[in-house]
Amino acid sequence: MANLDLGNPLMATYAIAASLMILKVVAMSWLTVVRMMQAKGGFRSPEDLRKTPLNPDPDPKQLLPDERVERIRRIHMNDLENVPFFLVAGFLFILTEPSLLLAQVLLYGYVVSRLLHFAAYLGARTHDTRATLWTLGSLILVGMSLRVLYVALS
Amino acid sequence: MANLDLGNPLMATYAIAASLMILKVVAMSWLTVVRMMQAKGGFRSPEDLRKTPLNPDPDPKQLLPDERVERIRRIHMNDLENVPFFLVAGFLFILTEPSLLLAQVLLYGYVVSRLLHFAAYLGARTHDTRATLWTLGSLILVGMSLRVLYVALS
Amino acid sequence: MANLDLGNPLMATYAIAASLMILKVVAMSWLTVVRMMQAKGGFRSPEDLRKTPLNPDPDPKQLLPDERVERIRRIHMNDLENVPFFLVAGFLFILTEPSLLLAQVLLYGYVVSRLLHFAAYLGARTHDTRATLWTLGSLILVGMSLRVLYVALS
Repeated sequence: MANLDLGNPLMATYAIAASLMILKVVAMSWLTVVRMMQAKGGFRSPEDLRKTPLNPDPDPKQLLPDERVERIRRIHMNDLENVPFFLVAGFLFILTEPSLLLAQVLLYGYVVSRLLHFAAYLGARTHDTRATLWTLGSLILVGMSLRVLYVALS
Repeated sequence: MANLDLGNPLMATYAIAASLMILKVVAMSWLTVVRMMQAKGGFRSPEDLRKTPLNPDPDPKQLLPDERVERIRRIHMNDLENVPFFLVAGFLFILTEPSLLLAQVLLYGYVVSRLLHFAAYLGARTHDTRATLWTLGSLILVGMSLRVLYVALS
Repeated sequence: MANLDLGNPLMATYAIAASLMILKVVAMSWLTVVRMMQAKGGFRSPEDLRKTPLNPDPDPKQLLPDERVERIRRIHMNDLENVPFFLVAGFLFILTEPSLLLAQVLLYGYVVSRLLHFAAYLGARTHDTRATLWTLGSLILVGMSLRVLYVALS
């Protein structure tokens, strides 16, 4: 019967990859906050123009988009389009009982592809670099999902 | 004790529905890419105007919204608002040990409702058609979540 | 071996917190619908200007943003950035076998922090209030993920 103990190497591999990806996505929220504080702008809600300890000198321009903030928001959005599905597909993939090596290659490979994608996007590398790294992660996600489908159907 | 083996028919039903939905959402990313390549536009990042093998003739207009691309982005966004929650609610629903028939009706019914929603949205059917299909999926999600809550509380 | 039965108090705690959060996020979709119907606007797709039983008097202005609708969309987006990751981190956290008290404090604490965040955002409270409540939830998410990482690595 499926063994979900974190002492099971397959499950530990998933738990490590999943918690790293969760921390990565949460870091995007914090990075957005950091950049909004640096730019003193890039806000989105009308009430953010109220004078508060965190915003002592409000200015209507603070609601305009700030490219340094928007860049993190685009990276974050790309995460939302990918990571939640990896988190579930990775778990179901473990339940298909792949070899430990295959699980490590795919799950850790996904984590590395997303960290490199982040670096390429943050540094405004050309589209082709970013797209290649995204494609790598997306193909891992598709491959794991197809295996789950195949095993569950057979 | 809960049996998560994919050989367990309840768990297999979940795994099939989940992997189909994951593949469906990932397909939205790929469809966005296809339509951006067809339109040679609908890009979002300033660096996407650099000359590269994938974009040999950059033009500032490539950063303007393109309705054919935006339509897929709206469909994708609707998926992000719904599917991650289905993936977790469906898993917990299986743990409440429903009958296999009920699980198949709700989980496969959800998948069908989302595929029809996609077809209606892609083909720009009237709002009322799209809303009806979305409502069906949303009610399945609410029903499964309420059952999980009820079983976990009792 | 990990016991995922909903009769297991740790797992029941997770299932209650998870289903409450799922219902909360789904409620944002429904609240968007309610406010679009009240405003008779805030729509996003060109086809939503067709005359239908739900929209008997179409008007191009219906595609302009409506702040009452946009506010719910921003709250919803904030949920999408947070809740899917909580749902997976909370599950893995349970697998680390924390004490029941710790699990209840963190999981129910997260739910409460998100409900208060919703109330603060809906009521347009100052940014500082909203940010404090968001931070509380985010720190719970980080803490649970770090514990999963630590246990899986050891």
